[in-house]
Amino acid sequence: MKDNYEVPVMMTKEDVTMMILSAKKQAGMTWEGIAEKIDMSPVWTHSACMGMNAFPKDKAEALVSVMGLPQEAASVLEEPPTKVWEQSVPTDPCIYRLYEIVGVYGPTIKALIEEKFGTGIMSAIDFDMSVTRVPHEKGDRVKLEMSGKYLAYNSW
Amino acid sequence: MKDNYEVPVMMTKEDVTMMILSAKKQAGMTWEGIAEKIDMSPVWTHSACMGMNAFPKDKAEALVSVMGLPQEAASVLEEPPTKVWEQSVPTDPCIYRLYEIVGVYGPTIKALIEEKFGTGIMSAIDFDMSVTRVPHEKGDRVKLEMSGKYLAYNSW
Amino acid sequence: MKDNYEVPVMMTKEDVTMMILSAKKQAGMTWEGIAEKIDMSPVWTHSACMGMNAFPKDKAEALVSVMGLPQEAASVLEEPPTKVWEQSVPTDPCIYRLYEIVGVYGPTIKALIEEKFGTGIMSAIDFDMSVTRVPHEKGDRVKLEMSGKYLAYNSW
Amino acid sequence: MKDNYEVPVMMTKEDVTMMILSAKKQAGMTWEGIAEKIDMSPVWTHSACMGMNAFPKDKAEALVSVMGLPQEAASVLEEPPTKVWEQSVPTDPCIYRLYEIVGVYGPTIKALIEEKFGTGIMSAIDFDMSVTRVPHEKGDRVKLEMSGKYLAYNSW
Amino acid sequence: MKDNYEVPVMMTKEDVTMMILSAKKQAGMTWEGIAEKIDMSPVWTHSACMGMNAFPKDKAEALVSVMGLPQEAASVLEEPPTKVWEQSVPTDPCIYRLYEIVGVYGPTIKALIEEKFGTGIMSAIDFDMSVTRVPHEKGDRVKLEMSGKYLAYNSW
Amino acid sequence: MKDNYEVPVMMTKEDVTMMILSAKKQAGMTWEGIAEKIDMSPVWTHSACMGMNAFPKDKAEALVSVMGLPQEAASVLEEPPTKVWEQSVPTDPCIYRLYEIVGVYGPTIKALIEEKFGTGIMSAIDFDMSVTRVPHEKGDRVKLEMSGKYLAYNSW
Amino acid sequence: MKDNYEVPVMMTKEDVTMMILSAKKQAGMTWEGIAEKIDMSPVWTHSACMGMNAFPKDKAEALVSVMGLPQEAASVLEEPPTKVWEQSVPTDPCIYRLYEIVGVYGPTIKALIEEKFGTGIMSAIDFDMSVTRVPHEKGDRVKLEMSGKYLAYNSW
Amino acid sequence: MKDNYEVPVMMTKEDVTMMILSAKKQAGMTWEGIAEKIDMSPVWTHSACMGMNAFPKDKAEALVSVMGLPQEAASVLEEPPTKVWEQSVPTDPCIYRLYEIVGVYGPTIKALIEEKFGTGIMSAIDFDMSVTRVPHEKGDRVKLEMSGKYLAYNSW
Amino acid sequence: MKDNYEVPVMMTKEDVTMMILSAKKQAGMTWEGIAEKIDMSPVWTHSACMGMNAFPKDKAEALVSVMGLPQEAASVLEEPPTKVWEQSVPTDPCIYRLYEIVGVYGPTIKALIEEKFGTGIMSAIDFDMSVTRVPHEKGDRVKLEMSGKYLAYNSW
Amino acid sequence: MKDNYEVPVMMTKEDVTMMILSAKKQAGMTWEGIAEKIDMSPVWTHSACMGMNAFPKDKAEALVSVMGLPQEAASVLEEPPTKVWEQSVPTDPCIYRLYEIVGVYGPTIKALIEEKFGTGIMSAIDFDMSVTRVPHEKGDRVKLEMSGKYLAYNSW
Repeated sequence: MKDNYEVPVMMTKEDVTMMILSAKKQAGMTWEGIAEKIDMSPVWTHSACMGMNAFPKDKAEALVSVMGLPQEAASVLEEPPTKVWEQSVPTDPCIYRLYEIVGVYGPTIKALIEEKFGTGIMSAIDFDMSVTRVPHEKGDRVKLEMSGKYLAYNSW
Repeated sequence: MKDNYEVPVMMTKEDVTMMILSAKKQAGMTWEGIAEKIDMSPVWTHSACMGMNAFPKDKAEALVSVMGLPQEAASVLEEPPTKVWEQSVPTDPCIYRLYEIVGVYGPTIKALIEEKFGTGIMSAIDFDMSVTRVPHEKGDRVKLEMSGKYLAYNSW
Repeated sequence: MKDNYEVPVMMTKEDVTMMILSAKKQAGMTWEGIAEKIDMSPVWTHSACMGMNAFPKDKAEALVSVMGLPQEAASVLEEPPTKVWEQSVPTDPCIYRLYEIVGVYGPTIKALIEEKFGTGIMSAIDFDMSVTRVPHEKGDRVKLEMSGKYLAYNSW
Repeated sequence: MKDNYEVPVMMTKEDVTMMILSAKKQAGMTWEGIAEKIDMSPVWTHSACMGMNAFPKDKAEALVSVMGLPQEAASVLEEPPTKVWEQSVPTDPCIYRLYEIVGVYGPTIKALIEEKFGTGIMSAIDFDMSVTRVPHEKGDRVKLEMSGKYLAYNSW
Repeated sequence: MKDNYEVPVMMTKEDVTMMILSAKKQAGMTWEGIAEKIDMSPVWTHSACMGMNAFPKDKAEALVSVMGLPQEAASVLEEPPTKVWEQSVPTDPCIYRLYEIVGVYGPTIKALIEEKFGTGIMSAIDFDMSVTRVPHEKGDRVKLEMSGKYLAYNSW
Repeated sequence: MKDNYEVPVMMTKEDVTMMILSAKKQAGMTWEGIAEKIDMSPVWTHSACMGMNAFPKDKAEALVSVMGLPQEAASVLEEPPTKVWEQSVPTDPCIYRLYEIVGVYGPTIKALIEEKFGTGIMSAIDFDMSVTRVPHEKGDRVKLEMSGKYLAYNSW
Repeated sequence: MKDNYEVPVMMTKEDVTMMILSAKKQAGMTWEGIAEKIDMSPVWTHSACMGMNAFPKDKAEALVSVMGLPQEAASVLEEPPTKVWEQSVPTDPCIYRLYEIVGVYGPTIKALIEEKFGTGIMSAIDFDMSVTRVPHEKGDRVKLEMSGKYLAYNSW
Repeated sequence: MKDNYEVPVMMTKEDVTMMILSAKKQAGMTWEGIAEKIDMSPVWTHSACMGMNAFPKDKAEALVSVMGLPQEAASVLEEPPTKVWEQSVPTDPCIYRLYEIVGVYGPTIKALIEEKFGTGIMSAIDFDMSVTRVPHEKGDRVKLEMSGKYLAYNSW
Repeated sequence: MKDNYEVPVMMTKEDVTMMILSAKKQAGMTWEGIAEKIDMSPVWTHSACMGMNAFPKDKAEALVSVMGLPQEAASVLEEPPTKVWEQSVPTDPCIYRLYEIVGVYGPTIKALIEEKFGTGIMSAIDFDMSVTRVPHEKGDRVKLEMSGKYLAYNSW
Repeated sequence: MKDNYEVPVMMTKEDVTMMILSAKKQAGMTWEGIAEKIDMSPVWTHSACMGMNAFPKDKAEALVSVMGLPQEAASVLEEPPTKVWEQSVPTDPCIYRLYEIVGVYGPTIKALIEEKFGTGIMSAIDFDMSVTRVPHEKGDRVKLEMSGKYLAYNSW
């Protein structure tokens, strides 16, 4: 509130993310566990809890129930996100390595998509992904599987 | 050659890439076909032909033979590459979508790696990848599978 | 050609663009005229002639015939383009105004798409556009019409 | 207020935007609905409510009345905005696609304006725009229609 | 010309600029003198000779005649320019001072335009400018006079 | 104030700007009106009120009196400013157009200064400017007049 | 806490860093001293206290005990860090010199690693480092010793 | 040579680097081997051959003799270099990892230098470095040893 | 203080700078006057008061006494600074002119240092500077005198 | 020369710089020596030979005579330069240290100029500089002396 008028305070996606993180820590839950409870994948669940994806109505209500969030949070979870990242080149090593893979192998992925499909792209919207731990004798491996719909460039 | 002295001209990785592209076009080959002939994966083969990876000696010789390159090209293919990309944010839509996936899902991949493995990263060096076309009734999909060794941060 | 080996020279999209521009100037043609002759829209035709889109086989052959290009140019016109622009903020006033419209109205377009469709985007791939001159008593107007397929974000 | 003097607090466009968003959510209104009530287009209405355009006096008063804002808000809505966007390359996918369209088709739009009008630009000031949902059997489409006055470069 | 095909060479605006600069030096002309001969202002004349503005047909022919350029140059002078500058912050002190004036006084010019006209801008397209030397006892002064049409933001 | 020690709070130029804007709005004054009352130009007055120029002692006292500011504000108005702008390329259209003029006509202004004066620059320090509304039948025009001392480069 | 709902406040790595710095100052400890008490190296200890590395469980408890931190801090110390630095080119002279060494000697280190090991890199994850003071008659020297596992690029 | 005057061509450091690389490849030498022959360290030798350091006179002559360079190259090797790197954030993974180490551990190195020496820096000028291969059962390691003179900030 | 734990608040260099500026204003002191009282130069004194240099113990105590600062401030003044500037190109005209001098004359200073000393640099650490007013009939002049130890590049 | 028309080649400042460097090397001259022969300072002479300052007519002729340049070079030396530097943050250590001094001491120089003169700047145009070697027992020092006219900000 300011001096002579009141600016309303609306619950934000950042607020709800903080509520989720706090509840998760107190309950000792994992992202896999949360995802399983709302019957969605761990990648999508984490991303949506971070405010980078919108929850369908039933999933928002499920999450509110599972995590004991205030009821008002459900409508916030359903809001479309504005996807913002501030570092055009990420510094965290775990994320930078992904950026590096795009830098090194991006033209290769492009060439092979063109060879297999024709001129077009892999959608980042009609898209899903998983992260798996694969045991390996020389050290376990991270497996990332991404699947996106092929979209052909239109000619008109 | 300059006025009063001679600067030697060495065959570069860019030169060899041009030779490969030209031979590939004339022979009507595909990257999958080339990869099969040297018994390597298409992703690695394309990447190394673009000068972004170094060929082991036997693979360099196999490629020289398959593509009809001059013998001198083999040693150039074996040289370690300097991996450079000029656009910190790529503009080509096919590559940008990959960059966007890193921006949107990077923190999620990081969180799930940490949940499954502990504090560390997926290596981009001890790494492999494939690109596959997956038939789908609502439109075929691009499948990217990446596998990298988990590297735990050292504490000392 | 270098000293002791030969680097093959392949016809590039830039080369073909120069050929088209030269032929267009000599023949006194317009982009609308060229587009009509190959039975495509002027926006797509110009864009593809500039190397920013790939020609379907029949359209490549039509263009080669209409403009009197060397036969080899057809296969180059069919190649998938790598779409690169060098100025992240364009300086030319005509293009900058479009950039400014995205800066000012981007969040508005996003909000209205979300209101009308749900969480998702307008595709820039399954996309078409036209530019028209609209007579107006206070000065004629430029009309831009863009149409892109709505793509809903996937939840999984 | 600071220690020994008082810094006056003035209602800002950001404050009024928060009031509008809060009232809109509580009343369950849409941007189309609000626009209709003040007899303006949805694109302009949203943009002006976000603080990116100034309201004419009568429209400011209409909005204050429709949304139940404090009377003081009207004068704030009439103030000229300072149009600022912080990401020179937007990251949100819905807005980025528009940026990409400018990157890919900007030179084409420029060439066709020049062909149809002569040397000049489409104004982004004497400008209007609409967003429409167009039903389509292969998936509904977003239609953007922009209209700006042609401005010829002056020679003097 | 490349190996087995010919890429046509078209006269560019840069080529014509070089021709003008060379002819100007040999003839010992000034920009004021050239401008007077083609009956245009020095600012516009220099700018158009540098390739930053397009010549109307009669002025292009006049310049070709005045400077003794090849006839082909006239059509190049008439082409719409693509206005590019490479330094987003100019380093040359003479140009930087202008940039600094925009940084320091930009918000002031904006506020006074809004006070005198309403919400809108000064056009940089329907625009003219002059540079004059004004004698002054404490040292002569540079006078820049700019005039641009006021453009009101549209509400729709 | 922090826990166990006190950090003094000094009135800043930003504070005084807020006081001026608030008083101006309540009194319904214009920048021209304020400028006239302290017998300075509107451009300088606005700029100095925004904290981009320092007031001479008598003008600071005049402003404090005219606007009813606390006495302490006078010394703050006299302090030398640190001139900072955060956007190296301004986004607001009204200011961007000025930036664009520098980009397009900067080299021309430089060339004409050199032709009229010799090698040197127009000072942005020993500098003044005005903004005027000029009636015009095809739409009124904004006139900017800038005058800066010519400074010759030193040779030593 | 906001108006009608509560956003939980979680202890952050920044909070714990402040607690450590405060306790360190009050106790007059050094980083070497702290490191010795928890039986880790000074480089790693400082880095982890700054929030740039995660503590193993036993080391977190040791630090909490040594520094008299609240018990809750231990779990925060164990959390994986998000490693962010905001200056892509550091300005502090002590850190800039390291950046400069990478700029000047980076290609040399790369060439010698390739000569001694083959194509690959030094890991920055399986990595350790020390800082030592080396007495020298012409002025003592700083000795930095870094050791990282060699990682060979995979070919597949 | 241009039309009517001659621009002299001077041997550059880049030219000499090419001569060295060519001679090194033909003779099958290593950087260690070259360094040994001129009795300098491999790090310094490679760096100076790349044009990033200047050779003392006797070392320049030794290198000319060892590598069979033209006599004129000696004076070029002695010239002070202008140390330029074009990527403020390097993309090659081997060099990026070093950059990452500076980002993550830079503040730690600074804190420990200050603890051990006082306020100051490690010189990057009065500096030396070595790269060693250290056998290790879990995979050999790269050891980097850097030594720079401590320089205390002056107070005056 | 947060909800259920307390984050200690430590006096920072910024806090002390505010204390100094406040005391200086109240006492009507100048930087020269303060410098004289602690028997240091004005340049160093101002810089250290701004937090860009560390005070030796005796000078910190002298300043605390001269300015009437709380005793705790002395230890803060002695802390090593982290030297950060946020604008890589400064906008304030007074500072920009210095930046411009480095841009224009940097390569010249380098060339003359190399001619007079050999390959090396002027230290910015073992460094001092003064600012003087020099009377001059055509307008007084600012004299900057900088002195830094010559550091020769090491060869090893 | 292009196919069917000729683009004139004009001698550039870069060409003349190459001529000077070549003549200087062949004659074994120093910058001090050259400066003395044309009776100007070494700093100005080097800067003007690099194309960063314009020669007065008599000095241009003197240099042409001293260095044995072609007569045409004199008029090129007299042309006003366009002062461009490409690295906004210079990488060469010798020049970076100067940049660092501006970053660290820029605000201090500004504060002291304001204290000694009032609100204004040191001119970088009416400016001169020298570089001297000062013997010192702990190592010789570089002395930079800069002198620029004080310019007061105008109030109008």
